[in-house]
Amino acid sequence: MNLSKKKCKPCEGGIASLDKKEIAEYKKHIQDDWKVTENNKISKEYSFVNYKHTMEFVNKVANLAEEEGHHPVIHVYYGKVVIELWTHAIKGLSENDFILASKIDKL
Amino acid sequence: MNLSKKKCKPCEGGIASLDKKEIAEYKKHIQDDWKVTENNKISKEYSFVNYKHTMEFVNKVANLAEEEGHHPVIHVYYGKVVIELWTHAIKGLSENDFILASKIDKL
Repeated sequence: MNLSKKKCKPCEGGIASLDKKEIAEYKKHIQDDWKVTENNKISKEYSFVNYKHTMEFVNKVANLAEEEGHHPVIHVYYGKVVIELWTHAIKGLSENDFILASKIDKL
Repeated sequence: MNLSKKKCKPCEGGIASLDKKEIAEYKKHIQDDWKVTENNKISKEYSFVNYKHTMEFVNKVANLAEEEGHHPVIHVYYGKVVIELWTHAIKGLSENDFILASKIDKL
């Protein structure tokens, strides 16, 4: 399962969100520090030495999001960025979230 | 009180945060839709038709933040941005927050 070679697919609902077992399987293929949160999202925190580096990362993530047509929530602090991923249309996690996570890992 | 003509001043603590009366006075000088939140921050939500417009706004806010040396928290969604302002060093609101709010209003 090479997630970073896959592309996010349009998702307009009508499919089930991943269950716990599937999430656990997908999670093996992204970096360890992604957390599955209570409300069925995955999130990761990144630290930066200054705001310039913070915003460079934010823009890289935003460009990737547009390429993939899948947009995380990005919380931007002075030297910290928190990325949250889930699939709005199915109110849960889909393969798209793990594809995007694995590509963010490679930025 | 023309806040948008003022510059944020470095704040490393040692001053009191604004009290309720002062906050109410400053609030008159920024747009109505800024909200004072329970935990002594001001926040405002902006809507955009697409991610391109969202990210253009985020980058304008980030550039302004660097110019002023005062950095809001920015929550970035697909077509929505939430700005939160407070002064970390004094754990509350300072004039800087209202100066930045009034400049964001003019972006």
